[in-house]
Amino acid sequence: MRVGIVGGGQLGRMLGQAALPLGMRTTFLEPAPDPCAAAVGEVIRAGYEDPEGLDRLAASADVVTYEFENVPVASIERLAERVPVFPPVAALRVAQDRLLEKRAFAEHGVGTAPFAAVSSVEDLLAAIEVIGLPAILKTRRMGYDGKGQLFLADPEQAGPAFQVLGGVPCILEQVVPFDRELSVLAVRGRDGTFATWPLVENRHAGGILRWSYCPADVMPETQARAAAIARSVAEGLGYVGVLAIELFEIGGTLLANEMAPRVHNSGHWSIEGAETSQFENHLRAVAGLPLGTTAVPLPVACVNLLGRLPPLTDLLALPGTRVHLYGKEPRPGRKLGHVTVRGSSDEEVRARLDRVRRLVEA
Amino acid sequence: MRVGIVGGGQLGRMLGQAALPLGMRTTFLEPAPDPCAAAVGEVIRAGYEDPEGLDRLAASADVVTYEFENVPVASIERLAERVPVFPPVAALRVAQDRLLEKRAFAEHGVGTAPFAAVSSVEDLLAAIEVIGLPAILKTRRMGYDGKGQLFLADPEQAGPAFQVLGGVPCILEQVVPFDRELSVLAVRGRDGTFATWPLVENRHAGGILRWSYCPADVMPETQARAAAIARSVAEGLGYVGVLAIELFEIGGTLLANEMAPRVHNSGHWSIEGAETSQFENHLRAVAGLPLGTTAVPLPVACVNLLGRLPPLTDLLALPGTRVHLYGKEPRPGRKLGHVTVRGSSDEEVRARLDRVRRLVEA
Repeated sequence: MRVGIVGGGQLGRMLGQAALPLGMRTTFLEPAPDPCAAAVGEVIRAGYEDPEGLDRLAASADVVTYEFENVPVASIERLAERVPVFPPVAALRVAQDRLLEKRAFAEHGVGTAPFAAVSSVEDLLAAIEVIGLPAILKTRRMGYDGKGQLFLADPEQAGPAFQVLGGVPCILEQVVPFDRELSVLAVRGRDGTFATWPLVENRHAGGILRWSYCPADVMPETQARAAAIARSVAEGLGYVGVLAIELFEIGGTLLANEMAPRVHNSGHWSIEGAETSQFENHLRAVAGLPLGTTAVPLPVACVNLLGRLPPLTDLLALPGTRVHLYGKEPRPGRKLGHVTVRGSSDEEVRARLDRVRRLVEA
Repeated sequence: MRVGIVGGGQLGRMLGQAALPLGMRTTFLEPAPDPCAAAVGEVIRAGYEDPEGLDRLAASADVVTYEFENVPVASIERLAERVPVFPPVAALRVAQDRLLEKRAFAEHGVGTAPFAAVSSVEDLLAAIEVIGLPAILKTRRMGYDGKGQLFLADPEQAGPAFQVLGGVPCILEQVVPFDRELSVLAVRGRDGTFATWPLVENRHAGGILRWSYCPADVMPETQARAAAIARSVAEGLGYVGVLAIELFEIGGTLLANEMAPRVHNSGHWSIEGAETSQFENHLRAVAGLPLGTTAVPLPVACVNLLGRLPPLTDLLALPGTRVHLYGKEPRPGRKLGHVTVRGSSDEEVRARLDRVRRLVEA
């Protein structure tokens, strides 16, 4: 089985790593020089919209997937004329646009923070009336890791904020005083088989994920509700592959924040922590193979390595850790790797997580 | 860190896979076309004795190791003049020669089956007098997976057997009526740090490993004795890296059969089953990094996929399994992959092991 992947970053690299034991060969479409996924597969060096590059990717693969949601829809459509592509383009289209995404959540019975579409400063002022402040103004497209967002506390900021974001279509979203950030990772097979991993608790700073913990300490009904949300969205979109939905927990209720039609940073712990990782199950799903079980026998955490790397010797000397470097050059804020933290009990994992964070955030 | 590996087979491939999360880059020296390790690193296509190829490997690496014990000693010596090479050549020399190996075991206080050196038919007849029959005649060099061995039941077979093996230096070894085949996997760091994984029970057929189970169901003193054997040999040889010693258990006693100065087929379960796999710890050891813990939290088994592959769909549908394909073309008897079998109890793993074996051996 030959798998084509649009994008050659760390998610592509980890998909390629998961492909190896399954005997799959991966080819990446990536314009950047020396992408980190090159260590595990062939690279077609071409732009994501380059017709020739896309056709070469299609010709090199039995199935194509993608590792980031900002791949142009037209590119996926071109690929899909030549080779099966999963997740389906309909899901990609929704995930690329915060307005369509919120509407899709609503349509599938999933709550979200109050929001309004904004196409002008007038829209924005009207939205502020309804939504109230503080609120977050987000571009509808091309947002990730906190990019394309501004916090609004005062109606006076409306005009400048809309301009700073480029005057592009936006949504205004109420700031919800959430108790916790969670994410649900789900996988749906070509045959409709569906599974979720246990809920993950996430901690962000500066819009970027810092660490995750699985299973999140939630009531069983919260877990069931999250799984139902993911199933509803996945079935509604005819989804195939791994789907991640970020959730806010607020007073025992779950609100969907956003979805990612791909493997997700909040699921990296699954490489060692789950019976089947998000990367392997994504490949199984898009390849039409049976899904693996998503059980998580023991608690597990994951800490991102951002911007700079502590000495490898120090990381490896920490008990219960597994280090994953992405082979990327350090640069401020760049995701360079992650550390999985394991242990035999919640207490042990949390104590080890603290040690890793002290080293990583020092 | 750049790691050079002599040999590009499945052991090299799995070392390369383990190198990826550590941010290491691997380069393989391999004369065969399209080696399966090529999926995870660069390949220098040259013979194992090719001076230019060896020098290119040395130039491409901060440290060199090897994935098979029949690499020419002169090649390792050439490499070692240019770059650190582990395991050390002294260990390689011993592991390549069954006579030196048996003598090394004896020297380090490790029992073996009775044996005698054989350089001629006369030697062989004299050895039969002492050792008795049945016995096994083995070439001193180039033996693996049951190759270079003949079973002798009758003195009449002595002349023909010696000829069939090419008239090369041999040893005659008593057939010991062992209760079980075990192996101990150990790792020793550059700084002398030493660790063993729990003892493994192995089942061979036709000289080839069929399945392994860890931890072997042995008395604690047997485990301790095996660890002491491995430590004695490793320290005696100034060893660095993973060392595997095959053992016979006979009436509660352990006899050493042979050693492999490398990662070993009977340790493949460690990828998922141990906190640190043999592949990662071998890399950590040769790179001078701290060793990872070798704890095995739950029982685990491993079944080799030999000669032909069952349908991937069937393998993936089995509960508690992880499939590892090596990307090799099927050929009778060829090691094409392995399946790791996990579960929450001994009973569950043994039941799942039976199911995998039924599928694989069908």
